[in-house]
Order: sequence, then structure tokens, then C-alpha cells
Amino acid sequence: MRGVIMHGPGDVRVEEREHPVIVEPTDAIIKLAASCICGSDLWPYRGADEVDGAPMGHEYVGVVTEIGDAVTTVKPGDFVVGSFMASDNTCEICRAGYQSRCVHVVPMGRVGTQAEYARIPLADGTLVATPGQPDEDLIPSLLAASDVLGTGWFAAVAAEAGPGRTVAVVGDGAVGLLGILAAKQLGAERIIAMSRHADRQELARRFGATDIVDERGDAGVERVKELTDGLGAHSVIEAVGTQESMMQAIRSTRHGGHVGFVGVSHDVELPGGELFGSMVHLHGGPAPVRRFLPELIQLIWDRKIDPGVVFDLTLPLAEAAEGYRAMDERRATKVLLTV
Amino acid sequence: MRGVIMHGPGDVRVEEREHPVIVEPTDAIIKLAASCICGSDLWPYRGADEVDGAPMGHEYVGVVTEIGDAVTTVKPGDFVVGSFMASDNTCEICRAGYQSRCVHVVPMGRVGTQAEYARIPLADGTLVATPGQPDEDLIPSLLAASDVLGTGWFAAVAAEAGPGRTVAVVGDGAVGLLGILAAKQLGAERIIAMSRHADRQELARRFGATDIVDERGDAGVERVKELTDGLGAHSVIEAVGTQESMMQAIRSTRHGGHVGFVGVSHDVELPGGELFGSMVHLHGGPAPVRRFLPELIQLIWDRKIDPGVVFDLTLPLAEAAEGYRAMDERRATKVLLTV
Repeated sequence: MRGVIMHGPGDVRVEEREHPVIVEPTDAIIKLAASCICGSDLWPYRGADEVDGAPMGHEYVGVVTEIGDAVTTVKPGDFVVGSFMASDNTCEICRAGYQSRCVHVVPMGRVGTQAEYARIPLADGTLVATPGQPDEDLIPSLLAASDVLGTGWFAAVAAEAGPGRTVAVVGDGAVGLLGILAAKQLGAERIIAMSRHADRQELARRFGATDIVDERGDAGVERVKELTDGLGAHSVIEAVGTQESMMQAIRSTRHGGHVGFVGVSHDVELPGGELFGSMVHLHGGPAPVRRFLPELIQLIWDRKIDPGVVFDLTLPLAEAAEGYRAMDERRATKVLLTV
Repeated sequence: MRGVIMHGPGDVRVEEREHPVIVEPTDAIIKLAASCICGSDLWPYRGADEVDGAPMGHEYVGVVTEIGDAVTTVKPGDFVVGSFMASDNTCEICRAGYQSRCVHVVPMGRVGTQAEYARIPLADGTLVATPGQPDEDLIPSLLAASDVLGTGWFAAVAAEAGPGRTVAVVGDGAVGLLGILAAKQLGAERIIAMSRHADRQELARRFGATDIVDERGDAGVERVKELTDGLGAHSVIEAVGTQESMMQAIRSTRHGGHVGFVGVSHDVELPGGELFGSMVHLHGGPAPVRRFLPELIQLIWDRKIDPGVVFDLTLPLAEAAEGYRAMDERRATKVLLTV
């Protein structure tokens, strides 16, 4: 079967890989219906993380083709959505809602789902079957649930977005945009999108943003304060992962407010004294997408949300390298790969 | 009147100061019944913070002697307890429970309550009268409510201590010890005190600690994990404020757990990547003691808690310098100054 391998920064190739087989009795094999390229895939692509011949991809939807002897909740023929972190969903950490830190967690990045088939470990705890075979037009949204929507949703939950709250969103990539959608669904009263790209501002408004701030850094913080009686937002979603974006998020939050941070941290050092003085709540990390999947799938199935519109470029798997280039050059927000 | 002035590191003197007068109509003047020395007063005493002729002290209980025209909730003769941060208790931040970050906050350290009298700004929002004149033996506990108890209590609340939870406490000073008392009152199932001093271990057990860990740093983290099925504590109270203690707290917390940090941060830099991976909730800062005062005063009045036992040395105000020395040299955990 064919799959994406990253040989080094900027060097992505679609190559022949071995067809996955059941290794553990808890495994399932799926034939992918679609996969995609994640903002976090750009870190190694740009040389910020080391990479050397790694299979790529951790977002996936598809049809189960084979299951191990111990798998009971999905069966061949089921259309499934899974998280980018495989989890048993039964350990104490999973039961507390932190499946991305399951005691038996398997990061799907090691598996590589930018491919025709993939082995999904811990299938019962990782995969959720849709109510039936989805209409073709639902596939992008279901794929979004696998990571970007689940991550934006977690960020909004971690930031305690909800009725009566003003939510600010730092980062206008797919995760930030879907954080806006999540905040809206969770009932936020006002949503401030921080973005300087016209196309993303438009999507932000479509998802529920009520205000757009195009300043960044301290100037962006000032604008958020001006919009919130000088206090700052109740809830701030951080979806970038840099020192600047983290500080912008913390400083845009009112005392006692909540920061939900999901941008993968790169060279971030948080000053303890400022954090102490800010009195914000800080919570984030790799989203426990599995916690939210049943709810998100239902919302998509019922056509109440349309997160798939974040995919603004669709390419066949064979053209994955062009997809990486388009995202790296910001010609695309999020690339869907058809398989 | 007499009051404590710190002229420089290690140089504390009791001197004649001007008798405080009503400046704003929202002020009250109190005659102190007792004051005390805070662990945070040791930072400038040891040269870690700059100081040059500053009045000292921010913890206080006493009797109202005079009120400004706008004060309505306390009157001369009332015995009152106040927070170390004066607050209006009416702004949006106060109403959310963050009185220590009130939009009109006045840190009481500027006032200096290691003295015979003190001017309390924003008296209505800051002071809480006791149900009557307290018995003498209740005064140390009421004084503790003003800062160390209120701070330990906030740390336990921020760490979400409660039924079914295992709470670990980093720091065995007065705040850490009262964090144990708070966790117990909040219903924690198991409380792990991290302490290597026999006398403090004893007090920790008296307040409700079920386990004592005398290892520090990584070894301490390992012990907490051993005691919690390898997962870490649900809730961790940090009551020191150093890089080591913060990392010990974060690493002792299970994924998805809560760190409540109240040790005043000194040269702390939190690594973003580790925080991201840990998935802990982080919340802390200067405790909004005013939020908890009514409840804490009632618990003390009803003799349900006895936080005053953390004072292990009582001196007259005139001997404040000896009090500082005793705390600096760890001969005393917490010094009460009679006025």
C-alpha cells in the first residue's frame, strides 16, 4: 500500500509501505476514506523537530477491514473516526477524561495515517463508529473531528467557554478557527478572533466570531482589553504554541479567567512571577479527543456543525508533497488527502 | 504609635510612626489585637527582594476605632479580620471571587500591620466582623485566617481537593500545613505531606496528613507516584515558590490533575513543553482570602478548626527583630506578635 514518509525537512514522499496487519488482539485495521495534514506536521517539515524517514499522519476516518480477537465495539464494515492518540478508555486517567494521556497511550503519529490503510491499536478505546455509512459530504467534517475539531473543542472546554463568557482566540489556523466554532456551540456570548488574514477572518465570522482583532502581541492584548472593559476575556484559547502566542493568551485573560492552550509548545518558558500575578487558570496539552468524539460525531451527523469547511484544499494522497508545500507557504489552511 | 520598619536585609526595627488617620471615606482605622510575620517577609529580609525603610506586615486582626463616612458594614468596637489585599468586593473581578486582584486593590504590605494601629482602605470590602468579641484563645486562629489559613485554603480549592481525592502538599511552612487542614476540611481522602522536619510532620498529621514523604525533588515525585498507583496525586498544593518546588508539584500531579500554587514565585520559569505534556491544571497566585473569610471565621468561632497552632513563637511587637531572626533561622514556623 502507499503511504507518506518524511525523509527530512521539506522532503515528503509517497512510497510503497507494508500493508498493516493485526499485531495485538486489540488492534483493528482500517481502510482510510480520508486523511489530512496537521499544523503540527509542519514543525518537522520546517526543521523545528527532528525527522528521518518517519511515516506521517495521525488524523483519520475510514472503514474497518479487520479486527483482532479482543475487539468488541467495532466490526468490519463499520465507518469509524478515531483520535490521534490511541487509548484503552478504561484506565483511571481515561475515565477522568484524559485519554490522550492513557496509561497505555499510543500516539498515532508512529503509525502514520497519511496512507491507504492503518493499524489502529486499542481499537475499542480509540475508535467510534458513525451511526451508518456517511454521505460523502460529511467525510471532511468527520475527519476534522479526529483532531482539529476535537482539539479546538478541548481548548474551548479547557478555557471554560460558556454562556455569559467572552472568549478570545489566539491563532487563526484550523484549530483556532474550530475553537471559535466550539465556543459558539458551548454558548459563549462574545467571541474575539485574533487574525490578520481576510479569508480566515471570514471563516472565523462564519463559525461565530463577533469581533476581529488584527493586532498581535501587546497591541493585540490592548485591543482585547479595550473590548472587555479593561479586564480581559474570561476565556482564551491558545492555538499556536510559541512564546509570543502563550504570553498573548495569558495577558488577554482577566484575573481569575481561563486559558486553554493546545498549540504544541515550542521553546516556551512561562515566567512564574507573571503567571502568579495573573491569577489565570492554565490548562492544555494534547487534546483528549476521544472524550468528545461521540458528541462531535452526532453534531456532525445531525448537520448542526460543519467543521469540514476548514479544509480549503483537497488533493489525492499521491500529491501529499504539494499539500505540505501549500500549508507551509500558507496557501492553504488545512489540506485533506483523499485515499 | 510603634511599628516595624525594615531598613535593609536583616535590619528590622520597631520605631515610632505616625498614627494613621482616615484619608478616604472608605477607610477604617483598627487597633491591632495581634499581627504576625509572614514567610514572604523573609524574601526581603534575606535580600531576595529590595527593601529600604518599608513598613512591614500585612496580616491583622483587631478592633475598629474609627471609620470613614462611607463605611457601612463595620463600626467602632467591632472585632475584625481582613485580608492582606484590600478590595472593594463589588467589582466584576471581586464578584468572580478574585478579590486579591480587585480593580481597586491595595496591597496591605504598603500599610504595614506589624504596628499598634493601621489604616484599612476599602473597609467594607476588606474587613469581616466576628460574631462578637472573641475569646483570647481564638485570636491566633483568627489572625491565621487573615493570610496563612486563607492562602492554604485557596491553594486547596485551586488544587480541587475534595472527596475521593489524593492531595499532595509541597512545602511544610505555615501555608503548606494549613493547606493540609483545608484539604481535610474539603473532604480529601488522602493527604500526603512532603516534609523532612519532625515537628512539622507532627503538625501535618494533626491537621490531617495521612502520609509523610521526606524525599524532595525527583525522589519526592517518585514517592508520591509509588503511593498513587504510579499516577501521581489528583491535587497538589505548592507553597514554596521556587523552581524546584513548582516542578516537584507539577510532576507529582497526575495527568488531568490540579496544581494550586501559592508560594510567591521567585525566579521560576515553567517549561512550556513539559507543562503541555503534563496536562495538569495550573492555578494560583495571591490568595483571594476575602472570598473565604466569612466561612473561615465561622469554622474558627465554632471551634471546628484550630489553625492558630501554627504559631509556635509569640513575642511582643517590641521584639519583632527577634521574631524575624527566629523564622529566618527556622527556629520558628510562624511568629505571632502581640500588640
